[in-house]
Amino acid sequence: MVNHFTLLKQDSNSKARLGRLTTAHGVVETPCFMPVGTQGTVKAMLPRDLHELGCQILLGNTYHLYLRPGHEVIRRLGGLHRFMAWDGPILTDSGGYQVFSLGAMREITEDGVRFQSHLDGSSHLLTPEKAVAIQEALGSDIAMVLDECIPHHVARDYVRASTERTIRWAQRCLGARGKTHQLMFGIIQGGLFEDLRRWCVDEMAPLAFDGFAVGGLGVGEGEEQLNSVAGFTAQWLPEDKPRYLMGVGRPQDIVNAVRAGFDMFDCVIPTRNGRNGTLLTWQGNINIKRAEYASDGRPLDESCGCYCCKHFSRAYLRHLYMAGEILAAQLNSLHNLYFYHRLMDKCRQAIREDRSELWPRWLAADAVT
Amino acid sequence: MVNHFTLLKQDSNSKARLGRLTTAHGVVETPCFMPVGTQGTVKAMLPRDLHELGCQILLGNTYHLYLRPGHEVIRRLGGLHRFMAWDGPILTDSGGYQVFSLGAMREITEDGVRFQSHLDGSSHLLTPEKAVAIQEALGSDIAMVLDECIPHHVARDYVRASTERTIRWAQRCLGARGKTHQLMFGIIQGGLFEDLRRWCVDEMAPLAFDGFAVGGLGVGEGEEQLNSVAGFTAQWLPEDKPRYLMGVGRPQDIVNAVRAGFDMFDCVIPTRNGRNGTLLTWQGNINIKRAEYASDGRPLDESCGCYCCKHFSRAYLRHLYMAGEILAAQLNSLHNLYFYHRLMDKCRQAIREDRSELWPRWLAADAVT
Repeated sequence: MVNHFTLLKQDSNSKARLGRLTTAHGVVETPCFMPVGTQGTVKAMLPRDLHELGCQILLGNTYHLYLRPGHEVIRRLGGLHRFMAWDGPILTDSGGYQVFSLGAMREITEDGVRFQSHLDGSSHLLTPEKAVAIQEALGSDIAMVLDECIPHHVARDYVRASTERTIRWAQRCLGARGKTHQLMFGIIQGGLFEDLRRWCVDEMAPLAFDGFAVGGLGVGEGEEQLNSVAGFTAQWLPEDKPRYLMGVGRPQDIVNAVRAGFDMFDCVIPTRNGRNGTLLTWQGNINIKRAEYASDGRPLDESCGCYCCKHFSRAYLRHLYMAGEILAAQLNSLHNLYFYHRLMDKCRQAIREDRSELWPRWLAADAVT
Repeated sequence: MVNHFTLLKQDSNSKARLGRLTTAHGVVETPCFMPVGTQGTVKAMLPRDLHELGCQILLGNTYHLYLRPGHEVIRRLGGLHRFMAWDGPILTDSGGYQVFSLGAMREITEDGVRFQSHLDGSSHLLTPEKAVAIQEALGSDIAMVLDECIPHHVARDYVRASTERTIRWAQRCLGARGKTHQLMFGIIQGGLFEDLRRWCVDEMAPLAFDGFAVGGLGVGEGEEQLNSVAGFTAQWLPEDKPRYLMGVGRPQDIVNAVRAGFDMFDCVIPTRNGRNGTLLTWQGNINIKRAEYASDGRPLDESCGCYCCKHFSRAYLRHLYMAGEILAAQLNSLHNLYFYHRLMDKCRQAIREDRSELWPRWLAADAVT
């Protein structure tokens, strides 16, 4: 089995790693952040603007693309890269997370999960094999196995049984792979239970995956639990494979997880919060709706080099937001994504140069929440 | 009085003119189209994308900017150009048109027009002097006089009286000008009555305006009346000043008006129709919502060089529209504005080379409606 991941360097001040992941559509320098392209578009962003801000890899949502426009349509049109005009790497999730968060009338069996579309109520069965087939039709560079993202309020017995099933589903996903350049990542579940996470890693690590993700976090468990579970799970994962912390998170969560040894991240915070008027800066968050910005001629962040900060004032951004202009979503998303990518630049630089003072500085003040 | 307009060439096959208008923020080649930047943004367009598609000059709406964020805020922030990061020429309307179309409880007196804001119901008085003051605060390159845009259903007596008042208001606007580089255009009213239009031109033409607009058209009078009134009014306007046909219109209306001797145009069609899924191509309109495009891998228009047509399929654009994605508004607006600017390129080229076969060709087929 070819290993597509190269571990370039270990940080001496933390468990952080510098790496390089090679995919069919190019190389990704890790640690990296993946903007979320839910329905075949990172909301309000042209692909060329993503490229310009240093985006290396996108995440696509299998659930959404399967329901609309349909994976077979995308396959016939040449695959997801061509469909959305993004020629860099794409990771697709399995669809499982959205089935559990958006689908109605879910029924889980050993076979898979039956659910009703949130769009039209139609009934669908998502099996491990189907999740693989859909992702192969989309032609993503990295496919994820089907798993159950377990809510935190359920009993240990359920977590154990669900995780066992997730492991069996992972094996079925491996068995369902066609001849393809697509990489496949396994997913570690196990809830907030250290022993179940450990056991899940022990079961999954020997399997022929190209990388491992940790799922079931960043879903309301709180910062302490997130750091704790992510921290102990990371150290058990194979060193020579990329480690992906799914759906996490806030800037400080990502930096903590990089320092715990994770390499890949995705989150809707930069785009969703941007559309909602919350803007990330190195001096702390800005809620652009606030009246204090109505005649503030300064950029969001004097130190930011993004198109938004180089051209527009807080007053203008507030005006766009208050007036309900589409351009507000465009500029805010662009700025927040730029921030996230510079965050990852700083992490990589700190590891590369092995200088602890280079880690993103605002964390001490905990200003960005 | 300095003339900022240079008439470069007259077409020998029509009354079309090639010209050049010099403003404080640059030169505009005419005939030209001005995208509408209603609230300080051309909806869904970054300024750099406007620049890239060849946009020379924007229109800003005084009514909207006066109500929100307020012209004094914009003045303090360095003017409208800096506020919206557009360093090319800007023409602002007087606010009158929106007062009559959006404001509630309008009351017209000799002094001006009192109206209630469509945003919060607050009461405002817009006088000719105030319209000039607001536009000077915005710092646009070209200001328009306050006029009444007369509905077509009113009696001749009202049209006559309103037009007389518009002429008196125009004189007051000239008197209210400060020391500024801003140009000022007069507006010809007179409804659909040939003699009233003629009389209005005779009254306005001697006044010290830098250009003349024809108002009150493109508001439901129909194609025949539009062509007729625009046609006879254009020929009476001074040859050595730019002629602006306000709010017009569809591509074929613009080409007709260029051939009648108009130099400047604005219209929300390319952006509004784009957001509504109607896309202009040289082969006719495309309603991107239609099911036939669901798996159509072709670009909107094979012959179009815009970013949208170079990268995306009809199937993708339909998907974005059906999924309610912001990117649909971005790409559709970009494509339609690109179309309008190529339309104006073709008009200018036809006049410059004096070759009637170069006029936009789809008009014969009347495919774009």
